[in-house]
Amino acid sequence: MTEQNIPYKIYLSENEIPKQWYNVRADMKQKPAPLANPATGEPLGFEELRPVFCDELIKQELDNDTAYIDIPQEIQDFYKMYRPAPLVRAYCLEKALDTPAKIYYKFEGNNTSGSHKLNSAIVQAYYAKQQGLKGVTTETGAGQWGTALSMACAYLGLDCRVYMVKVSYEQKPFRREVMRTYGASVVASPSMETEIGRKINAEHPGTTGSLGCAISEAVEVAVSNPGYRYVLGSVLNQVLLHQSVIGLEAKAALDKYGVTPDIIIGCAGGGSNLGGLISPFMGEKLRGEKDYRFIAVEPASCPSLTRGVFAYDFCDTGMICPLAKMYTLGSNFIPSANHAGGLRYHGMSPVVSQLYHDGYMEAVSVEQTAVFEAATKFARVEGILPAPESSHAIKAAIDEAMKCKETGEAKTILFGLTGTGYFDLVAYEKFNNKQMVDYIPTDEELQASFAKLPKF
Amino acid sequence: MTEQNIPYKIYLSENEIPKQWYNVRADMKQKPAPLANPATGEPLGFEELRPVFCDELIKQELDNDTAYIDIPQEIQDFYKMYRPAPLVRAYCLEKALDTPAKIYYKFEGNNTSGSHKLNSAIVQAYYAKQQGLKGVTTETGAGQWGTALSMACAYLGLDCRVYMVKVSYEQKPFRREVMRTYGASVVASPSMETEIGRKINAEHPGTTGSLGCAISEAVEVAVSNPGYRYVLGSVLNQVLLHQSVIGLEAKAALDKYGVTPDIIIGCAGGGSNLGGLISPFMGEKLRGEKDYRFIAVEPASCPSLTRGVFAYDFCDTGMICPLAKMYTLGSNFIPSANHAGGLRYHGMSPVVSQLYHDGYMEAVSVEQTAVFEAATKFARVEGILPAPESSHAIKAAIDEAMKCKETGEAKTILFGLTGTGYFDLVAYEKFNNKQMVDYIPTDEELQASFAKLPKF
Repeated sequence: MTEQNIPYKIYLSENEIPKQWYNVRADMKQKPAPLANPATGEPLGFEELRPVFCDELIKQELDNDTAYIDIPQEIQDFYKMYRPAPLVRAYCLEKALDTPAKIYYKFEGNNTSGSHKLNSAIVQAYYAKQQGLKGVTTETGAGQWGTALSMACAYLGLDCRVYMVKVSYEQKPFRREVMRTYGASVVASPSMETEIGRKINAEHPGTTGSLGCAISEAVEVAVSNPGYRYVLGSVLNQVLLHQSVIGLEAKAALDKYGVTPDIIIGCAGGGSNLGGLISPFMGEKLRGEKDYRFIAVEPASCPSLTRGVFAYDFCDTGMICPLAKMYTLGSNFIPSANHAGGLRYHGMSPVVSQLYHDGYMEAVSVEQTAVFEAATKFARVEGILPAPESSHAIKAAIDEAMKCKETGEAKTILFGLTGTGYFDLVAYEKFNNKQMVDYIPTDEELQASFAKLPKF
Repeated sequence: MTEQNIPYKIYLSENEIPKQWYNVRADMKQKPAPLANPATGEPLGFEELRPVFCDELIKQELDNDTAYIDIPQEIQDFYKMYRPAPLVRAYCLEKALDTPAKIYYKFEGNNTSGSHKLNSAIVQAYYAKQQGLKGVTTETGAGQWGTALSMACAYLGLDCRVYMVKVSYEQKPFRREVMRTYGASVVASPSMETEIGRKINAEHPGTTGSLGCAISEAVEVAVSNPGYRYVLGSVLNQVLLHQSVIGLEAKAALDKYGVTPDIIIGCAGGGSNLGGLISPFMGEKLRGEKDYRFIAVEPASCPSLTRGVFAYDFCDTGMICPLAKMYTLGSNFIPSANHAGGLRYHGMSPVVSQLYHDGYMEAVSVEQTAVFEAATKFARVEGILPAPESSHAIKAAIDEAMKCKETGEAKTILFGLTGTGYFDLVAYEKFNNKQMVDYIPTDEELQASFAKLPKF
């Protein structure tokens, strides 16, 4: 297969969309640690998780052994609405960088939620519907997850209640309106509808909310209303399983043209996009069939992998969720106002954390201004305005391509372009006006946060 | 070919992207009337148009005879960045409507400009670059055209100066930031940089501007700065030529599956998307090879085809541009604040006007609230948040599909989905809050406007 035969965009045909998800845990010798009870530190089983999560999703959460899980036909049909996502050969970026590197990116932004989140939203909504539930609750910060879940629920005719961090609710009215257009109820959090919301409003009058508080409200509503469950857009094992569709499609597209990547790069917030993208490649590495370099890219302002500790911690800042063993900055850690809202998470997927801990992947952290420089360069030559989150991966991919320029090596780089930046233009405006500020937490700040970790 | 073989989305392969544009004028017995000098009413020739437009584009504007025009390789390469655009079979919408009709739409929103405008922006920027010019100027209202032109200029390294109607500049800061991210200078119009801008600011202190004024400023800057020309995103013959790529791709995709549409529907503002979509089909009709029903859909608040007159009129409200013979509400007509900014134009492409005048197509007008009802229905089942402009076509397509449900006919409907609604969420918010207002101009208003038409 010659270079000339590789098109700008590789679209699989519809019948090549994966019909099974790949569960990378099946090939991990050291399995990710189970979710644990915050009171006792004991692993949480199926029955203990049932009041909060849908039954089938708990099974997927706990299943460390089944390598391939069938994708139900109705989800396959939904996937056809916006998948296959294109694998793009970044010819224009390569030319602009004058690098011998061959750069590919898997673009997940061509759907109205604007990101890869829809891949798991439809699955979680589907199993809720299958279980005969009335609806689901969730929280949203930047709004991508809430939008994706609203779309999935609208399609299936399921009630969708989104607790949106108050500051986002007020500052991101457009995201809110997309969710409302899809029929979701969007509530500013903290609200006066829940016990925890009323308590927080009483204790902190005028508070603009937090993701931790929104999670607490969403969970409270799910467990106290019959026919409702809570769903979460990242971090969990099940979410990484659903997102494996990204990596499976990317691999199938590359295989079609006989291309093997040397380096695979993804941005890392909760870890769902990264975990999904690398899954099938990581499987080959875990089974000793092939070797790849994997690079997780996180913001220097919220560096869980590069500067966090590997320990059991709360998944939420409100400390009502189970504990997960992961790289964490401590659930007390408040990330600075980094505009990549999707990466402002104190922890990291247990699967990604374990793989990183066991030396199967690398991690780098990058500063915001450099990320927006990379984003702008990319937008001008590749024609896609990238999300700030995705642009962390762009930055690292450009860095690797520039190393190739120095050494003359024609490495093949694959990165995940998780979404578009249409709802992030306040951040672009700051960058365009040269008002963007970089922030790196001090060692003292991190040590103070680590000191408050649960003692298990 | 059985029904089962038609996928949700038909993507042509890269080498099936059209390599020539189709010029429907070549097959029109009655050619569209030429642009005319507003002082004399005489047709404008090549030399008279040179100070304003690029040479090659003037040739395309005046060429009523060449049926196929080669697409330069560099433009073909740019097209590969975001084309082929998918032709989508609206299985989910058909199911939701429970109609025997088969509905297809050509989706042009999968690029950062969010609309079909990029198809012509890259061409106009390319010929400006070829001519050795430094840059181009233009006006933008809602911002889709300005964004598209910014992207094209960034790609080619051409200076881009956009005069943005002041009210949009202030109320649509996100659109403005996308253009700035692509390196364009965006100026609120009326500005203090031009003679006409200073004059209007002096006469109307605190004015929020108008499209007519922005056009005047952009033209003034183009003709008074060596190395600059003015470019326009719709109405002109050349723009319809470039947009024929929409119809050619749609037809190639349908032909591949042996599908012939019965009805072809497009929204109509200046006419570029509609003209581009219908071109190759209209060619067959004009040559007597096949028959199709064509429906132009316009807002009831700005009904140039359904309630306008066919006459020579100014293309701009500022009355500095040439005259075009077209269906018009009069260049004095001020459309109400209909949210489909791209359809708030008093006139209509001379090509579309002539075809409509000669009975080759139909036109309907629809009210805004009904359009947003259709948009919301579509978004929930097809997963794409449509632009308000595009949603006019959705409304008419749903109406035709519902007629099929009544009669039991399984007609095949093709419509153009020109773009996404990410930057139109103020309008969606109004609709979600049930605050949307419909407006239909009275006969008296229209007669008063017609009375001021130029006397040629």
